[in-house]
Amino acid sequence: MTMNPESVTFDAGLLSPVRAGTPVEEAVCDLAWLQAMLDAEAALARAQARLGTLPLHAARAISAAARAERLDLRQVALAGRETANPVVGLVQAFTRLVAEEHPAAAEYVHRGSTSQDILDTGAMLVGVRTLRIIRADLDRSAQALAVLAERHRDTPMAGRTLALHAVPTTFGLKAAGWRRLVLAAEQRLADLMERGRLPVSLGGAAGTMAGYLEYARVGAEEPWADGDYLERLVEMYAEETGLAAPVLPWHTLRSPMADLAGALSFTAGALGKIAADVQFLTRTEVGEVTEPFQAGRGSSSAMPHKRNPVLATLIRSAAHQVPLMAAGLMQCMVAEDERPAGAWHAEWQLLRECLRLTGGASHTVVELAEGLEVHSSRMELNLGMTGSRITSERIAAVLTPHLGRAAARRLLNEASAAAEEAGRPLHEVLAELPELAGRLTEAELADLCDPAHYTGGAGALVDRALRQGSGG
Amino acid sequence: MTMNPESVTFDAGLLSPVRAGTPVEEAVCDLAWLQAMLDAEAALARAQARLGTLPLHAARAISAAARAERLDLRQVALAGRETANPVVGLVQAFTRLVAEEHPAAAEYVHRGSTSQDILDTGAMLVGVRTLRIIRADLDRSAQALAVLAERHRDTPMAGRTLALHAVPTTFGLKAAGWRRLVLAAEQRLADLMERGRLPVSLGGAAGTMAGYLEYARVGAEEPWADGDYLERLVEMYAEETGLAAPVLPWHTLRSPMADLAGALSFTAGALGKIAADVQFLTRTEVGEVTEPFQAGRGSSSAMPHKRNPVLATLIRSAAHQVPLMAAGLMQCMVAEDERPAGAWHAEWQLLRECLRLTGGASHTVVELAEGLEVHSSRMELNLGMTGSRITSERIAAVLTPHLGRAAARRLLNEASAAAEEAGRPLHEVLAELPELAGRLTEAELADLCDPAHYTGGAGALVDRALRQGSGG
Amino acid sequence: MTMNPESVTFDAGLLSPVRAGTPVEEAVCDLAWLQAMLDAEAALARAQARLGTLPLHAARAISAAARAERLDLRQVALAGRETANPVVGLVQAFTRLVAEEHPAAAEYVHRGSTSQDILDTGAMLVGVRTLRIIRADLDRSAQALAVLAERHRDTPMAGRTLALHAVPTTFGLKAAGWRRLVLAAEQRLADLMERGRLPVSLGGAAGTMAGYLEYARVGAEEPWADGDYLERLVEMYAEETGLAAPVLPWHTLRSPMADLAGALSFTAGALGKIAADVQFLTRTEVGEVTEPFQAGRGSSSAMPHKRNPVLATLIRSAAHQVPLMAAGLMQCMVAEDERPAGAWHAEWQLLRECLRLTGGASHTVVELAEGLEVHSSRMELNLGMTGSRITSERIAAVLTPHLGRAAARRLLNEASAAAEEAGRPLHEVLAELPELAGRLTEAELADLCDPAHYTGGAGALVDRALRQGSGG
Amino acid sequence: MTMNPESVTFDAGLLSPVRAGTPVEEAVCDLAWLQAMLDAEAALARAQARLGTLPLHAARAISAAARAERLDLRQVALAGRETANPVVGLVQAFTRLVAEEHPAAAEYVHRGSTSQDILDTGAMLVGVRTLRIIRADLDRSAQALAVLAERHRDTPMAGRTLALHAVPTTFGLKAAGWRRLVLAAEQRLADLMERGRLPVSLGGAAGTMAGYLEYARVGAEEPWADGDYLERLVEMYAEETGLAAPVLPWHTLRSPMADLAGALSFTAGALGKIAADVQFLTRTEVGEVTEPFQAGRGSSSAMPHKRNPVLATLIRSAAHQVPLMAAGLMQCMVAEDERPAGAWHAEWQLLRECLRLTGGASHTVVELAEGLEVHSSRMELNLGMTGSRITSERIAAVLTPHLGRAAARRLLNEASAAAEEAGRPLHEVLAELPELAGRLTEAELADLCDPAHYTGGAGALVDRALRQGSGG
Repeated sequence: MTMNPESVTFDAGLLSPVRAGTPVEEAVCDLAWLQAMLDAEAALARAQARLGTLPLHAARAISAAARAERLDLRQVALAGRETANPVVGLVQAFTRLVAEEHPAAAEYVHRGSTSQDILDTGAMLVGVRTLRIIRADLDRSAQALAVLAERHRDTPMAGRTLALHAVPTTFGLKAAGWRRLVLAAEQRLADLMERGRLPVSLGGAAGTMAGYLEYARVGAEEPWADGDYLERLVEMYAEETGLAAPVLPWHTLRSPMADLAGALSFTAGALGKIAADVQFLTRTEVGEVTEPFQAGRGSSSAMPHKRNPVLATLIRSAAHQVPLMAAGLMQCMVAEDERPAGAWHAEWQLLRECLRLTGGASHTVVELAEGLEVHSSRMELNLGMTGSRITSERIAAVLTPHLGRAAARRLLNEASAAAEEAGRPLHEVLAELPELAGRLTEAELADLCDPAHYTGGAGALVDRALRQGSGG
Repeated sequence: MTMNPESVTFDAGLLSPVRAGTPVEEAVCDLAWLQAMLDAEAALARAQARLGTLPLHAARAISAAARAERLDLRQVALAGRETANPVVGLVQAFTRLVAEEHPAAAEYVHRGSTSQDILDTGAMLVGVRTLRIIRADLDRSAQALAVLAERHRDTPMAGRTLALHAVPTTFGLKAAGWRRLVLAAEQRLADLMERGRLPVSLGGAAGTMAGYLEYARVGAEEPWADGDYLERLVEMYAEETGLAAPVLPWHTLRSPMADLAGALSFTAGALGKIAADVQFLTRTEVGEVTEPFQAGRGSSSAMPHKRNPVLATLIRSAAHQVPLMAAGLMQCMVAEDERPAGAWHAEWQLLRECLRLTGGASHTVVELAEGLEVHSSRMELNLGMTGSRITSERIAAVLTPHLGRAAARRLLNEASAAAEEAGRPLHEVLAELPELAGRLTEAELADLCDPAHYTGGAGALVDRALRQGSGG
Repeated sequence: MTMNPESVTFDAGLLSPVRAGTPVEEAVCDLAWLQAMLDAEAALARAQARLGTLPLHAARAISAAARAERLDLRQVALAGRETANPVVGLVQAFTRLVAEEHPAAAEYVHRGSTSQDILDTGAMLVGVRTLRIIRADLDRSAQALAVLAERHRDTPMAGRTLALHAVPTTFGLKAAGWRRLVLAAEQRLADLMERGRLPVSLGGAAGTMAGYLEYARVGAEEPWADGDYLERLVEMYAEETGLAAPVLPWHTLRSPMADLAGALSFTAGALGKIAADVQFLTRTEVGEVTEPFQAGRGSSSAMPHKRNPVLATLIRSAAHQVPLMAAGLMQCMVAEDERPAGAWHAEWQLLRECLRLTGGASHTVVELAEGLEVHSSRMELNLGMTGSRITSERIAAVLTPHLGRAAARRLLNEASAAAEEAGRPLHEVLAELPELAGRLTEAELADLCDPAHYTGGAGALVDRALRQGSGG
Repeated sequence: MTMNPESVTFDAGLLSPVRAGTPVEEAVCDLAWLQAMLDAEAALARAQARLGTLPLHAARAISAAARAERLDLRQVALAGRETANPVVGLVQAFTRLVAEEHPAAAEYVHRGSTSQDILDTGAMLVGVRTLRIIRADLDRSAQALAVLAERHRDTPMAGRTLALHAVPTTFGLKAAGWRRLVLAAEQRLADLMERGRLPVSLGGAAGTMAGYLEYARVGAEEPWADGDYLERLVEMYAEETGLAAPVLPWHTLRSPMADLAGALSFTAGALGKIAADVQFLTRTEVGEVTEPFQAGRGSSSAMPHKRNPVLATLIRSAAHQVPLMAAGLMQCMVAEDERPAGAWHAEWQLLRECLRLTGGASHTVVELAEGLEVHSSRMELNLGMTGSRITSERIAAVLTPHLGRAAARRLLNEASAAAEEAGRPLHEVLAELPELAGRLTEAELADLCDPAHYTGGAGALVDRALRQGSGG
């Protein structure tokens, strides 16, 4: 097997079609991480310059040079094996780059800093940039689902529990529930961004910020009180990156990673629920929905007639994986010392994959929600499959005050059996029962046995849910 | 192997000492779940009675009878195999119990309801009751850690990264970081309770609330508009249980479970970090802290001299497991139809274990934090282990403006090697270097090489962190 | 909430119906673990006595006293918090018990031993005893599935891929596949027992067996060479327990736990596959199988007409959890030093739960397999749902040599559309096509379009699979 | 952020340094998967040709064209979104390629086949090829560890349990244990290959092999009995690929994936154990081992003096992740129908990552094991840290027959306290005790208190372990 040596670096998405070609790929690819780390370096230099502890010209030169495509990404990655993280090699390569153009600026690169500040701040930048994409997709999905919920507010269908028809529901209520989950997911992601849970990392070699202080003393035009300088430096760095300012350096206080893991896991799970429902409703024997048609989509190599629910399938492949990777991130909270020897290093690709898979699924659910075909006549047909049994809960409730609970249930069971044996509608059999004579008219009984008339508060619930925009 | 047949039900905590005998055991045991489900039944009856759709006397009789110890718990559990959940059997047994004392009330038990409403509401009650215990323990831990952080604000120790001494830090900063994580965990749990994320479950057979409506029509003194009735019923039910009112029935919209999973996983991870640090600092070769002494604690069957860090060990055993079980809960969001056939059923013991392990760990960390012995003299001793190398970052920073970055580093490396070879203090060797003559006094150099003087912003960071009470 | 203080220890299986009341509960309950650890103590004493390094009378007294019901289980469990494992307290209580009856034997309890030897050997005993139960259940299931496979060797049904009808298959092939998985699981478990992968633990305080040697020197009638004694002691201990003899003490070489985790995870997954298929085939819209009927089984609190697939539901609840807990066990292989501070302690309840859930699922699948009702007429009906489309793969194959691949597919698509529009059988439409005139008779075409005639090698595959008994 | 559009496909290993640049990258990259799938197509054609059901010239043309670098990998990957798997697009592109060169062969591409047969067979090929690399690395590591174990057979060091010194052990025993784990892992992987657990996939559209049969009838020179043909086709396909022949098509009988998951998880865990030990022993306060030196290796961006244990850190990052991804694979055994809609699709990248991370860790452990520096003098120094306490188990054992167990322990505790207070060696204090007068000479007592003389059976165990080559 001979192949182009470079090709080992080619990840085309062959094994992860849920994200192949979706926007999130660009947001989380290696080059995007490299850029985010360079952005962190540049923002740090600007923050130091704003406080007068680094020459402004150097901050400008560093910012101008901080372009990922100017570095040799593979070389930086390979160098990562020598130090167990890619930042040492990145700083060396980047310093050389700056030195070529502005020799005087080179020594200000990464000043007072440490690998983890750059990688963690970079990770937060990648996270925030990806969350923006995901949130926009969730918003679009929620809008499409609101349309479905409203349009099908009163479309009856079988409610199914433990695989069997239970009582009727409506497709509108189902769609409103899907929307609710999407909004809840969006809210969990918004929380991260709006409550300051995605902060810059600024701790220096062991989280005391000593390096920053030391160089600040050397470089400062006027002396700073330590506490003031550090507080201001964190603020400036946060401003320059658009991230939050943390209370403490978080090298081994991994709340931001755990919060991201939790929210992404929630999101993937929410989308997986929608996909699972779509898959079942698409079943040949059910046929109540079809995924949006697109030429070539859903075809099979062996069976040209099929139109597979591929979008839902892709979403489920992501929903399965993300919680496991998120669990890995959660476990990495157990990070010993001032920097752990392994727990930190395991986070990076787990986080990337959580972001990428969730982002791929979010993108996919937009298409699914916007184009889903709903077959209400098939819903009606299926709803009738068990005769009136699907309304037995209701009939029992209505008969109970007339007959008592036990007698009502016994009568109902007997009548159902008789109706089934004779192939007659249940309401006719009920109308002939002497026990019910004079209590309920045949019309009342027919209404009582009509599944489409037993959707309970579904309509009101849809209205209530659609009035609420936020995710609770 | 003959044994008492009842004994198979005896879970003494033999395999899970982290929680054996801690308060959380009572809050999450089978009997507590049974009680919580009975509380849900009783609250439902009272809510219906307050709206005039169920006789007040029946609500009173149901509430009076709702005592778990009056049911045969094992029988209820075994009956659960026939229906895949324990509620059907519970309702039958409970109805019989009510019937014995108030025959007329019996038919109002579980009126219009469904197994999932009772089990899910019961789970939320168990959750809230357990979270109260955990939060109180986290508060106590945070207070104890604040004392440690303040007391050791200026106690220098080695900062360690990737297993090696890096630069100095202080024990106060370490303790302040632990407190920060504990507060963050407390905040995540508080969020659940204060933002309405732990709601009652009220959906009826397939989430349309149809059964409740139907019986309300039968039982109502005056007619209700469907939407009004449902909205009020949810509110009353929420009031009676002390839980939140959801926007929609959440039988297959599992946000509450996912939110609990995320917050408990976060908490367990936060506590695990503290434990990991304590374990390392307790090492024979390190000896910087010791777990609180208690007679018999930490002893070994073979080695009477040992005083093992058992509290930290127990906490880590929990921190390892919880994220995995939480991942299982997250995956259960992919719940098909109106009630899934398995995903719901997998949640119960996963949730119980997440609560129990996290609760055991929280209880254990209180004892650890309140009694931790800190050996600052050993910290000082260890800090000197690498000579002045632990301050090399600082020395390089100070020399750089005099010599340039590259020359400064080279000089430092040579001086360090010379000092080590000669067994002399680094500052003496530096003082003799012609390159530094006239630049830094011997006293300045001695200060520069003193690890205890290079704790950077640690003190200021502790102050800043202690000013902040909430978890961000 | 007042409750009997003892009740916190009552685990009735309320939250885990998959195993409530099944035989595996007894095999893995706390009392069974306590007994297994006492069995380990007794076997150790007998092994030492057989080598002449412990008085025979002491070994007899220790063996006679080793009855779990004579100890206070809760006390032992609570004492476990003081030492992070239950063995120290167990040894103290057991020594007192022996001392009461045979004072001279008391000092020989746990001679030269360490907590981990006893707990790990106990865990292996619990494991082997539980595997026997599980394997017997798997054998019974495999037999029942063989009957199903044989009986339905030629029962055609729709093969379904990505939720849609693909091409026909047979129920016999499906059942033969289920059996294959069950046999494969059984083989994985048998491997553990037959290849010596479940060994005694015998290492002493830090895995050097020093304590055993030291006491052997003291107690020996004649001097032993160290290596000889240790080798013989391991052999004797293995004989007395029925477990395997390991090459090295495995305190932190956790192969046995990892192997168990892998095999149990495999088993749970295999059973989960069967359950997932049964659930879908039970669907109201599908109706091809029904779970075995038993009065009260599968009923719903709100919908008396339902007969839920509860066995399959229970199995899936286990199949979901076991792989996650097994992953926790696998991660515990990363066990530092000569005994880890947490990784060992996390194993115990993970292992118990893996055994208990898999055992519950195995027991449940026996009942499912032995009583499954198969509705072949419904299978036939469903097979016709897509007209002849389900055989389009075949028709295309047959037409290709006559028309070429592209033309064959185009013709088939047009004919299918025409047949559907006209509501006519496809073979009639094909028979009228001029392109096919003289090539295929109408009878041949009718046969070609008959789904029941396109089951490929299903029958031969069933025969082949049934000839093979072992799991491969 | 503008970047080269192609760059989103560039996975340089930036976030996963444990495998960046290691041989396994080439074995599992997208191009390697593409090649493996083409190999599957070609082998299938050759197998069919050998049975006379496909023209030999076509098989040759297909085999000749099956070169991954001739296809547009990104296009194939993107097309995968339309069908939820990459094979449909692959077959189309590959057929066009064949058609360009040998038009008559094009229609024989993928004859009778289905996506899953190609992808699963491709996955097995990728698996086997990667396992070969991993096994070779494990063999090399085992050899290096055998050298360490032999060389340090009698090098005493502290045995540590629950973070504290327990009793002495030897570095040889530790290295022998590491080797044992490596051999056990190698054995688990060998089992897969040697026991036929990595088979070809050959089922056709729904696992009945109908398509293969149908085309065989069309293409056969002489008629085959169905069963004979299928059996022979599987055999030929297995021969052509070098994989095993399965009993049944395994589209939804996922034993091969579960077996791979279990064995890779085992391997990663085994390597993680070694890494965890190395990390602790490297600690500044411990200093008993150092990772192999290489210029630039292990350096820090802020602290030039550090030589971080980067190899161990990388290994641990992999050991943490693999069990979680393996759990995901195990859960995918719950694969409904004849092809699941999501569970199959989630496997691919989980498997790739399990292979890649384990392969990266295996490669890294070779370097670690071959170059590990062992500091036996530091081991000796550390062993003396607790005075003679580390031998208290032994002293108690020796004194017990003289004084009785309780008196012996009391005496020892008092003597230890006295020795510590007076700063005297324990054996001197013991020699002065009247209780021991005439029982043990001062020389005997000195020997008894010497930690280096209390390594128990460590030497014999090393010998025993080194005699055994296979992994048990």
